[in-house]
Amino acid sequence: MSYSTPVRDIRHALKHMAGFDALSATGAYEDLSDELVEAILEEMGRYCDQVLAPLNWDSDQHGARLEDRAVTTTPGFREAYQQYVEGGWNALAFPEGAGGQGLPGTLAVVLIDALNAACMSFAIGTSLTTGAAKAVKAVGTEAQKRLFLEKIVTGEWSGTMNLTEPQAGSSLADIKTKAEPAGDGRYKISGQKIYITYGEHDLCENIVHLVLARLPDAPAGTGGISMFLVPKFHVNDDGSLGERNDVYCVGLEHKLGLHGSPTSVMAFGESGECYGTLLGEENRGLRNMFIMMNSARLDVGTQGVGIAERSFQQALAFAQERRQGRAPGVRDGAQIPIYEHPDVRRMLFTMKSLTAAARGICYANAVAYDLARTAPDETARREAAALEGLLTPISKAWSTDRANEITSIGVQVHGGMGYVEETGAAQHMRDARIAAIYEGTNGIQAMDLVGRKLQGDGGEAARRFIDDVAAGALEAKAADDSGVAYAGQCLEAAAAALADSTEWLLARAAEDQEDVLAGAAPYLRQFGNVAGGYYLLRGVLSAAEAGVRESELEAHKQVLSFYADTTLAESEALSRAVKAGKEAVRRLDPELLTA
Amino acid sequence: MSYSTPVRDIRHALKHMAGFDALSATGAYEDLSDELVEAILEEMGRYCDQVLAPLNWDSDQHGARLEDRAVTTTPGFREAYQQYVEGGWNALAFPEGAGGQGLPGTLAVVLIDALNAACMSFAIGTSLTTGAAKAVKAVGTEAQKRLFLEKIVTGEWSGTMNLTEPQAGSSLADIKTKAEPAGDGRYKISGQKIYITYGEHDLCENIVHLVLARLPDAPAGTGGISMFLVPKFHVNDDGSLGERNDVYCVGLEHKLGLHGSPTSVMAFGESGECYGTLLGEENRGLRNMFIMMNSARLDVGTQGVGIAERSFQQALAFAQERRQGRAPGVRDGAQIPIYEHPDVRRMLFTMKSLTAAARGICYANAVAYDLARTAPDETARREAAALEGLLTPISKAWSTDRANEITSIGVQVHGGMGYVEETGAAQHMRDARIAAIYEGTNGIQAMDLVGRKLQGDGGEAARRFIDDVAAGALEAKAADDSGVAYAGQCLEAAAAALADSTEWLLARAAEDQEDVLAGAAPYLRQFGNVAGGYYLLRGVLSAAEAGVRESELEAHKQVLSFYADTTLAESEALSRAVKAGKEAVRRLDPELLTA
Repeated sequence: MSYSTPVRDIRHALKHMAGFDALSATGAYEDLSDELVEAILEEMGRYCDQVLAPLNWDSDQHGARLEDRAVTTTPGFREAYQQYVEGGWNALAFPEGAGGQGLPGTLAVVLIDALNAACMSFAIGTSLTTGAAKAVKAVGTEAQKRLFLEKIVTGEWSGTMNLTEPQAGSSLADIKTKAEPAGDGRYKISGQKIYITYGEHDLCENIVHLVLARLPDAPAGTGGISMFLVPKFHVNDDGSLGERNDVYCVGLEHKLGLHGSPTSVMAFGESGECYGTLLGEENRGLRNMFIMMNSARLDVGTQGVGIAERSFQQALAFAQERRQGRAPGVRDGAQIPIYEHPDVRRMLFTMKSLTAAARGICYANAVAYDLARTAPDETARREAAALEGLLTPISKAWSTDRANEITSIGVQVHGGMGYVEETGAAQHMRDARIAAIYEGTNGIQAMDLVGRKLQGDGGEAARRFIDDVAAGALEAKAADDSGVAYAGQCLEAAAAALADSTEWLLARAAEDQEDVLAGAAPYLRQFGNVAGGYYLLRGVLSAAEAGVRESELEAHKQVLSFYADTTLAESEALSRAVKAGKEAVRRLDPELLTA
Repeated sequence: MSYSTPVRDIRHALKHMAGFDALSATGAYEDLSDELVEAILEEMGRYCDQVLAPLNWDSDQHGARLEDRAVTTTPGFREAYQQYVEGGWNALAFPEGAGGQGLPGTLAVVLIDALNAACMSFAIGTSLTTGAAKAVKAVGTEAQKRLFLEKIVTGEWSGTMNLTEPQAGSSLADIKTKAEPAGDGRYKISGQKIYITYGEHDLCENIVHLVLARLPDAPAGTGGISMFLVPKFHVNDDGSLGERNDVYCVGLEHKLGLHGSPTSVMAFGESGECYGTLLGEENRGLRNMFIMMNSARLDVGTQGVGIAERSFQQALAFAQERRQGRAPGVRDGAQIPIYEHPDVRRMLFTMKSLTAAARGICYANAVAYDLARTAPDETARREAAALEGLLTPISKAWSTDRANEITSIGVQVHGGMGYVEETGAAQHMRDARIAAIYEGTNGIQAMDLVGRKLQGDGGEAARRFIDDVAAGALEAKAADDSGVAYAGQCLEAAAAALADSTEWLLARAAEDQEDVLAGAAPYLRQFGNVAGGYYLLRGVLSAAEAGVRESELEAHKQVLSFYADTTLAESEALSRAVKAGKEAVRRLDPELLTA
């Protein structure tokens, strides 16, 4: 189960696919330089390969345990977490004033990629902590910031998001947890939350829960939800830890994967003594939660990239070691490594090309996130923000759908051994499976794409993106290299099909939202396919221009060309699925389907 | 986790998709009548729903255990197995002279569908037993038949297939297990076999192992493998059980799923006292093993259908119960069942349409199997045999690939609850995952399709099948019903694309087998997509002609039409993937892929 952080690929994705250099050009990141990025990538690789990756298998076999409301994590996690905090990893992209290092958010996304490949069940907790820090930074009061911000930024205290309740999974409008004024400026919180990632653990001394709840007389629906900051231990005014708050973990889920991550059932105020403070304005909780949610969705997409990478590396190593069979027509002699079989290489190229495409999408999404906040020019900021919004559901859903496929192929490459847990290939498949579900199911991402993102600006951002893709395709078609030219041609056709379904959806939106919602999932897949092809192509063009060494460039070209003949080829079929509309999923009496 | 055998769908698939009535027309099955089939389906449903289905969750949580070389199976399995034997289920399709009931093999395939939906980890063992019975019946000596056949046919004794060794997984040519003449007409067997399904258990009193091994001085490769019958307990000449043989289970695999099925490491002759008899001729072991292997492959494909059905039913039930969110534009009022959301229905229709298509392929494959043996006309028998051969790798690989997708969607429909094991949705995904691997990985099935099956007769069977599909499409295009006519049009285009890649492969076969092997997997998918569409369409046309009630017919039409817009739509893209050939999977230095 050898694994190493794919620093070369990460560098390629950053620089050539996602256009990371645009960030230095903004002037917003003083210390940012190629050398610094290089040093960070190397150090990150060391931490991930040497500290985290060796814990991955143990985290599956010796997962988090709950006893007397206390959670014990996998042996080694505490030490790894301490090194994570000491290495300054959590603080990477926060401003220096808030205890951070003032680097671009894109590097935090790169970190998520690497951490999740090394040990996903450890890594997913850290995303919640940075998310909580973002929310406190954005809407916290001075007091909240003074007491909590730096501690969460550094990761000395961890953070959680408490949204889901049994009756309100994806439907946050139906949240019932209550918050009542306690008379001293604080609020009494009561209710139960489920599926709380790292809701309780032993990695650090305090946990800061961000909790969605309703004030008395709050309006029904999403406009009546407020956000509260509820610490595990209260914090005295001098910053020292005070009393234990009445918030406890009362259960851990028995999950398909991610056994190392304690997924907690949290009870707030069972003894009527749970206190928190309002974070942000009253009844604006959901909107404020979205401050962290958008970037949390990109984070989850990137988790998909990481676990796909892990699965791919293991499959590739196995394919080189495992000997089975002989070349066509050969009957004698030693068996050959299965990498020699074209069908095995097909599986590996499928894994590789989809992983690389997903990485390109997520990193480009991250660069857009940063540019939306730091580009000097107002129009540039606005366009970057629109691109960020557009790509976010795609990063989240496409990358994680593909991660499910990739990790399943990873099992297949191992043959019978893939089905045996000790091999470790199945763990990646089990671990990956959550990413398509949490942080808004992929179905909800698709609805976000065809709803807010596509209709919100009348299709402006989508059309601009597709124009960029078409321009890239045109450039590629003119390339000397026939393979690149062919990929350009495939991308052009795929983009045209995407434009076609985009216009169909926009036209139907005026008539019937059911038609739009019915086509949401295939549209997202189609969009992701095209975006992935676009970033793969950009990667090749930019690397060629930068004079990357020939053999490496060849590998990128072959990945692109494989992707063009497989994934880009799906585009026309997906247009048909989109345009089949609501008739295709007509509401039959379910009785007729069970038989 | 309510489940019931889909008797209505099974009947539809048998009669309308697979053309089961052709079997009565052969006159080979004296007692076969609609009433008898009906009675069998009802009784089968009762056994599966009441006895097996309730054991499924337990089989996952309390799987097989090994202690002192003895295996204890899940509580309830012994009683269920006894009822299985007493019900005559194992003997269904064997001749009456051999202790069977003389019914078509197709009904045994239907049984596999139903058993695997109810409890896959129980059911997969029974396929090995019927497989062993087929082999003994086909090539056993009189003595072997007298002592063993009826016991295995009835299932009083179970059977196993011992092929795999650590160094020889898919590459049977590399088997090393030895068989040496013992001087008394028997052979001493020594060696280790892995991944032996139900290699040891407590369900019945004896186990008959069919073991591939090499005689001294046997030629290298597949031509030097012989098959041996190695009982757990020797059998005295009067049929009573004799001494324990020196064959033991020395380990159970810790698997991703199918915990109820003991996957054994078997040690033969550790004390030098393992004796068996030659089954079939010397050095013909592999060929004889294929007697059972072809139908075993169809059985595994059908396992995929069963587990997909189970997953679908659970997802559909959940979608009707689970309330989340509201219709577009509605803000107040009660939450609606998620079945009301178009995107959820898309997931369910995907599951349903692929399951129905896979069932049609497997049942049609089974009917071809029977016709190849019972059709009165020589040409009909030959054509049926060719169709059986062609469909077998497709049944196996397409159905199980799709089962992986379907059971993963089944998890997705459940949202967060899908990731929690207690829900049971994840179990289906874990259980299903083996079917694409064992009995020849799906990659090997694809190679069989483009190799022996396509090139073996110069494309004759494939072309005939595609002609049949085109004729069906033409008939549908002329239908009054616009939906059916549209599906016919889609099928026509998909079949044309399939014909195109078929001819490309046949042309390349003369030039370069690497090109053929590189396209094997997408070709199998394309073939399966078209075959599935063809059988769905046949089902609709035949049911319409038979005057099936309108609402039911509507459901079949909608499933067909959904499939046409999604799965059939993939056909052109898959032609492109096939025709990309070996260049698409060029043998790059793996170093360049790891980065």
